[in-house]
Amino acid sequence: MRILTTETTKKVGEEVMLKGWVNARRDMGKVTFLDLRDRSGVVQIVCFPADLDEQSLAIAKEARGEWVLEIRGIVNKRGVKQINPNLATGEVEVLAKEIQVLAKAEALPLDLAEEKIGLDVHLDNLPLTLRAPKWRALFKIQSEIVEAFRAFLRGQGFTEFQCPKIVGGSTEGGANVFNIDYFGHKAFLAQSPQFYKQIMTGVFERVFTVGNVYRAEEHATTRHINEYTSMDLEMAMIKDHTDVMKLETEFLRYLLEYLKKTVSEELKACNYEEPLLPKEIPVFTLREVQKLIKKHTKVDHIAEPDLEPNEERWICEYAKKELASDFVFVTHYPTAKRPMYTYPDEKDPETTKSFDLLFKGVEITTGGQRIHDYQQLLGNIKKWGLKPENFSFYLEAFKYGMPPEGGLAIGLERLTARLLGVENVKEATLFPRDLNRIDLPLSS
Amino acid sequence: MRILTTETTKKVGEEVMLKGWVNARRDMGKVTFLDLRDRSGVVQIVCFPADLDEQSLAIAKEARGEWVLEIRGIVNKRGVKQINPNLATGEVEVLAKEIQVLAKAEALPLDLAEEKIGLDVHLDNLPLTLRAPKWRALFKIQSEIVEAFRAFLRGQGFTEFQCPKIVGGSTEGGANVFNIDYFGHKAFLAQSPQFYKQIMTGVFERVFTVGNVYRAEEHATTRHINEYTSMDLEMAMIKDHTDVMKLETEFLRYLLEYLKKTVSEELKACNYEEPLLPKEIPVFTLREVQKLIKKHTKVDHIAEPDLEPNEERWICEYAKKELASDFVFVTHYPTAKRPMYTYPDEKDPETTKSFDLLFKGVEITTGGQRIHDYQQLLGNIKKWGLKPENFSFYLEAFKYGMPPEGGLAIGLERLTARLLGVENVKEATLFPRDLNRIDLPLSS
Repeated sequence: MRILTTETTKKVGEEVMLKGWVNARRDMGKVTFLDLRDRSGVVQIVCFPADLDEQSLAIAKEARGEWVLEIRGIVNKRGVKQINPNLATGEVEVLAKEIQVLAKAEALPLDLAEEKIGLDVHLDNLPLTLRAPKWRALFKIQSEIVEAFRAFLRGQGFTEFQCPKIVGGSTEGGANVFNIDYFGHKAFLAQSPQFYKQIMTGVFERVFTVGNVYRAEEHATTRHINEYTSMDLEMAMIKDHTDVMKLETEFLRYLLEYLKKTVSEELKACNYEEPLLPKEIPVFTLREVQKLIKKHTKVDHIAEPDLEPNEERWICEYAKKELASDFVFVTHYPTAKRPMYTYPDEKDPETTKSFDLLFKGVEITTGGQRIHDYQQLLGNIKKWGLKPENFSFYLEAFKYGMPPEGGLAIGLERLTARLLGVENVKEATLFPRDLNRIDLPLSS
Repeated sequence: MRILTTETTKKVGEEVMLKGWVNARRDMGKVTFLDLRDRSGVVQIVCFPADLDEQSLAIAKEARGEWVLEIRGIVNKRGVKQINPNLATGEVEVLAKEIQVLAKAEALPLDLAEEKIGLDVHLDNLPLTLRAPKWRALFKIQSEIVEAFRAFLRGQGFTEFQCPKIVGGSTEGGANVFNIDYFGHKAFLAQSPQFYKQIMTGVFERVFTVGNVYRAEEHATTRHINEYTSMDLEMAMIKDHTDVMKLETEFLRYLLEYLKKTVSEELKACNYEEPLLPKEIPVFTLREVQKLIKKHTKVDHIAEPDLEPNEERWICEYAKKELASDFVFVTHYPTAKRPMYTYPDEKDPETTKSFDLLFKGVEITTGGQRIHDYQQLLGNIKKWGLKPENFSFYLEAFKYGMPPEGGLAIGLERLTARLLGVENVKEATLFPRDLNRIDLPLSS
């Protein structure tokens, strides 16, 4: 019966059977050490020639990185001086008695322990490089971020739903969509689950969905990818957009605690520093941010409808320094720059009850209250120059009773990248698709 | 402070505030009854003219199905004769004191309480019809099926990952894929996460992913949809395909218990009958099924490489009657009919260590052991007439150490449909895409 490497610490003196990948082999003359990796962690295997049959010994001598071995041996406590405090199993080692090969590996083209593998080399070799400690830790954490999102929302009465990605029209108005040939009809890849989650608030009142979304943007920045994971929620019976912001703040607090509980080792491996999350995240209107920037930098962008990336970084640095927060809400983006379903502020209808959440310099969330009144929504569709008949399915939800509602979307890869201090969002995307790459570089 | 309708039972004698949709209004001369629905359930509101101001009374008289109301009132215990045993809140009612409109609804084009809305009418009006009790219950259960899948696998040491859906090649060999224009390059919608989950077993050993997959099949049957939700898992360090079958059996047992605990009310609303799941699900090879069919029906399909739909139904009926099981595993499909990565049985290399799981007449899972040896896989790719260079990314996982591994995929919508006795898989798909429909019928 196989046990996991981390279980060896509870089996001192016992014979065990392990299966795993060779992380490293160290030949020290008479004795050979193997670091064996499985899904739980790593343990040191000690191979003395006297303990092993000829075949096992040959494997111990020949095995290279990423060979997969099945090893029988005795768990021994290490001497005090041999204890490795950086390893969860560092107080024990396994004295090999028998070794079998489950799979050989060709000579590795790169050293997985190497910290500085270039981004392109990394992306070209993901099936191999993802096995390195840093990436295993990062994507384990990412998997727990998604779980935390779901667990938190389920606790708040939200229902999950599965959202289609093939759509007949584009959510946001037309640009930046990938086209699909759908049995001779024109179809698109969804830019967001926006319409469906709004429809579903009519069904379950509070809903969420996690899935891929698509932007055919020809951007080559450290913030953009063309297929990413959107964590979406939508909730009815709200007062206004601030209810959604409050929920997101609570989620973030839940998330930080959850990660410490579930993936503390992985956080350490990523040199995680817990972000500053005050009781209330600072909130500025777009105009207030622009005024602050003008006051402090003399740059006057007060007439601009949005923040530039360097301005997003500026307000984040300001909030960190002055308000001890790594997060900043920016609200009231102009009506003209937001989608037709965005709720205008009654006090200033040129601005909307919308918000972005900035985290360490990058926008990770867009959200807000939506227009729920059927006639108002219909009016806006026309005002935006769109055709109501293209939205008839969506509009049916509002025609038949939709209360005040709003929601938000969190970009999973951006959140992961900012949380773990990774520069390029592609490094926080398991198999990134960009302008030049689908797994491998696209031929030109 | 708003409370949920189901919380009224704990608030007898207290004043409460409720928000929800009007399920039904009954005018009984002096008194008007409203059934108010929110995400938790339904409660009866009693409107006496003497209790209400003029405006509230007008709303009580005018409100129709799907109006959204905010109601203040006093929770009263019902008289013994008035108790409604079919309603979770059936022992109480709320005496309305004040009513406000959160949203009006136009006159409904159909009666949501009606059991027999035709499929096309239903699909044309999903934003409305999904609010009916049957569909709310069905998709609530579906959401819990996904949660059960994840909870079970997390408990078994599996790690979740996010899988891309834009791919550069087709997994299964070429046919039935949707084409995407990817910045002037040819790309496809993934038919399955197969290659990625195999790659990820090299990283996390045991992985799962839940997401949309695509089949450009021109089938118009009750079993096919063109975009569906695949619940995928893949696990390394297996003995053979039977380890995967064992895990699926354990999952199904976990699922049935989980649903009884979490959505018992919804199961009742769907007239759920718990399926027969014996300790061991019956297993037949394809050939054994064909021999049984020949013996009992005289139809000789022993040379055929697959079962026909009516044969799948036959063996399920047989297993139910003779072996008290609603589930049947069929193994050893021919090598020639399975994808190039399928593991051939050493004892009979013309057949594979693959399986289907049939449930009440329909295949809900395909799974099996995969070829993990790099040279063998490379050889098969060539044998299948495919180009190794098109699979270089995938192959890298096997080049650098992959132990014996296997996995399976469960079609969420088919599982839901069979579990809840729904005839057409489209009824178990939230927003089904088929040959003729993306939300609304495609124009010809």
